[in-house]
Amino acid sequence: MLDGFFKSNNIAIIGVSREENKIGRVIFESLLSKFNGNIYPINPNAEEILGYRCYPSIKAIKEKIDLAVIAVPANIIIISINDCIKKKVKNIIIVSAGFKETGNSKLEKRLKELLLKHKINAIGPNCLGIFDASTGLDTLFLPVSRLKRPKRGNISFICQSGAIGSAMLDLIAGENIGISKFISYGNATVIDESDIIEYLANDKSTDVICAYIEGVNNGKKFFSTLKKTAAKKPLIIIKAGITKEGHKATLSHTGSLAGSSEVYNAVFKQNKVIKADSLQEIIDYAKIFANIKKIHGNKVQIITNGGGFGIISTDSIINNNLKLACLSKKTTALLKKSLPKTVIISNPIDLTGDADNPRYKLALSSCLKDKNVDVIFLIILFQTPLVDENIVQDILSLKNKKPIVVVSAGDFFTRAIKQALEENNIPTYAFPENAASSIRKLLEYKGKK
Amino acid sequence: MLDGFFKSNNIAIIGVSREENKIGRVIFESLLSKFNGNIYPINPNAEEILGYRCYPSIKAIKEKIDLAVIAVPANIIIISINDCIKKKVKNIIIVSAGFKETGNSKLEKRLKELLLKHKINAIGPNCLGIFDASTGLDTLFLPVSRLKRPKRGNISFICQSGAIGSAMLDLIAGENIGISKFISYGNATVIDESDIIEYLANDKSTDVICAYIEGVNNGKKFFSTLKKTAAKKPLIIIKAGITKEGHKATLSHTGSLAGSSEVYNAVFKQNKVIKADSLQEIIDYAKIFANIKKIHGNKVQIITNGGGFGIISTDSIINNNLKLACLSKKTTALLKKSLPKTVIISNPIDLTGDADNPRYKLALSSCLKDKNVDVIFLIILFQTPLVDENIVQDILSLKNKKPIVVVSAGDFFTRAIKQALEENNIPTYAFPENAASSIRKLLEYKGKK
Repeated sequence: MLDGFFKSNNIAIIGVSREENKIGRVIFESLLSKFNGNIYPINPNAEEILGYRCYPSIKAIKEKIDLAVIAVPANIIIISINDCIKKKVKNIIIVSAGFKETGNSKLEKRLKELLLKHKINAIGPNCLGIFDASTGLDTLFLPVSRLKRPKRGNISFICQSGAIGSAMLDLIAGENIGISKFISYGNATVIDESDIIEYLANDKSTDVICAYIEGVNNGKKFFSTLKKTAAKKPLIIIKAGITKEGHKATLSHTGSLAGSSEVYNAVFKQNKVIKADSLQEIIDYAKIFANIKKIHGNKVQIITNGGGFGIISTDSIINNNLKLACLSKKTTALLKKSLPKTVIISNPIDLTGDADNPRYKLALSSCLKDKNVDVIFLIILFQTPLVDENIVQDILSLKNKKPIVVVSAGDFFTRAIKQALEENNIPTYAFPENAASSIRKLLEYKGKK
Repeated sequence: MLDGFFKSNNIAIIGVSREENKIGRVIFESLLSKFNGNIYPINPNAEEILGYRCYPSIKAIKEKIDLAVIAVPANIIIISINDCIKKKVKNIIIVSAGFKETGNSKLEKRLKELLLKHKINAIGPNCLGIFDASTGLDTLFLPVSRLKRPKRGNISFICQSGAIGSAMLDLIAGENIGISKFISYGNATVIDESDIIEYLANDKSTDVICAYIEGVNNGKKFFSTLKKTAAKKPLIIIKAGITKEGHKATLSHTGSLAGSSEVYNAVFKQNKVIKADSLQEIIDYAKIFANIKKIHGNKVQIITNGGGFGIISTDSIINNNLKLACLSKKTTALLKKSLPKTVIISNPIDLTGDADNPRYKLALSSCLKDKNVDVIFLIILFQTPLVDENIVQDILSLKNKKPIVVVSAGDFFTRAIKQALEENNIPTYAFPENAASSIRKLLEYKGKK
């Protein structure tokens, strides 16, 4: 149902203004800048825009159109849809707002009937549409100066709310986390969350699915989709509108029916859906699932250059029902022999504040080889000057099949190194609590606890 | 007991190396760059360093020394202390490590006896010392390129762990939050957490005290200090080593005695201490307490330009036992008359994705005037281009005695505006959950719930 969207080569944009910053115009410019296929701007009042021939209607285009993006005001949407029907366009993204979410249920109903009657696959209305990091297909009508686009990756994100989606993409791009596909589906008039999740479940470039859901129209379909999907790949969901008051607020937003949080919780649990309780948790969980495919058990070895961070990490690990690894005698003896006396060889291993890259590399390589260790909890505080950005290469040179999770808190210097680690598929966290709860979620999903 | 430290004019640094990047040398350069008093470098093997006359011993200085900072190896520390005694120095910061935290309890005991016998106020050993944003007194021996120093503010932070302290300062500086005094006190051999908290309780430039505590030596003294302090000003504490395993890790760090988390929790609760369960919570809570002095009740009005953020904010507000404000008929009528039809006038007020600065200003000013509103929960998503950085001035022009808390998630563009808001004493959060729990903590402290 969604394959046609992402494989589109010929895209028409209905409602490309001669004025800058208007929605259709922003989408047109965005596609021009990075999309390899053909783009056809539609505007009955312009002969050309930015040097491109403008069409008075989609019907005036000779070539077959794979996808129409509609950005005209709600009151003339039906005309545009009828034109698409005549042109035999099967895939439409309607970004326009002004339907059931503003009380205009009559228009929404009419739109829905028309789309269903002609078997048109439509995303929206009242949405941002789609973003595909690998093809440059991008209907998000928000400027890159405000909404940085993430690099290519293996996480796909579906989001009923455009605002949540755009803020999350911006944050994700800032952390240098990769995205495969992003879909903002708004009112879900034809294509709904279940259709999108099902599509992503079968999408080879998606390893992890994240979803922000306000409510679902068809509970039975949704729950059966969850069951099928979560068996295939990790599915992380935040359900908004879990309180009575929050539920009420969903009605005036995307106008969807919410359900009791108990029902959702039970269904999520039954079906191995990974429940996120906050937007932060979505990001935390997504990056560990995207980067760590295998984890053998819950024995965590902490390596740190700051004792205090080691202690709160220990607390976090225990509070998340993980275990502290117990290094073998061989590893302990080797480390005691090779490292300065001030270093504490235990769990945590405290390399102390004067730790440099070689000291980290030695401790890390020894722990990776130790059979008693399942996961490395690698705390690196870059406030101390003897450890530097070359540690990224040191870590990569050692990376084996055991998971490494990095915890590092700080401003610019730290952030740049964390971005380099994320670039190389090592999940990074600012605080131990977030890292430990993410490891727990991964183990729970893998059935290792 | 600590006043002498912060009012020092003549500071001697014992152990200033001719080599760059050594601890004493870094402290010397740091003070040279921004401290207004006199600085005396001590090194028996150098006549001058960086063009400054070097002294063979502190005894060779003619002027009275207010504070000695000792950065020599642990094995010669006693010599330095004896020199300070002869010079009648009353305040000493010992940054050197290698005492009870590395098993050298004998040396620690000897050091302690010597300091106590001569009634010397000493911070450390095994610490970063102190940072005072208003005087430039800064013994943190970590470079600014790695550890950005925060601007001047009204939050003071005491931290048993140097690593936690430096990572937190760096993060805090990145968010543009202000700091009054920072004290890393390490092994607490003479001056302990209670002495520091008591000093800050009476310090006029400190409005909020944050503390990272691993354990306390004198429980009775600590608990009586908490009682006195929390009655005067907000005291936010994270207690590390709350699990059995975490407690064990504290022993090899600062070697302090921990206590059961139940005891701490009970005492914190009894004494109005604000308990933080994570490092993120310390930052979250500190900024609301630092910036909001008065709050009349728990009726929160949400204003947003993204429906989804409105919904999860509603959930967060309800989950934190806050109430959604109910706008007066007058406010509702005024807003309905003045704002576009697509805007939803309720709680949340959804200004929708095309909201611009004037729309925000109108909604905000009307809600501030409404008697039914105690707190404004102002969500601004800067991914949409019609709202821009001038909104900072719009918000400031309206700021009255009602608290405004801003929620805004995103990368560069967003971060810069949040820094400008923090500059003007408006607390900002990335996610609704953090903002709502901070408002709850503030209300609980003020006894308004």
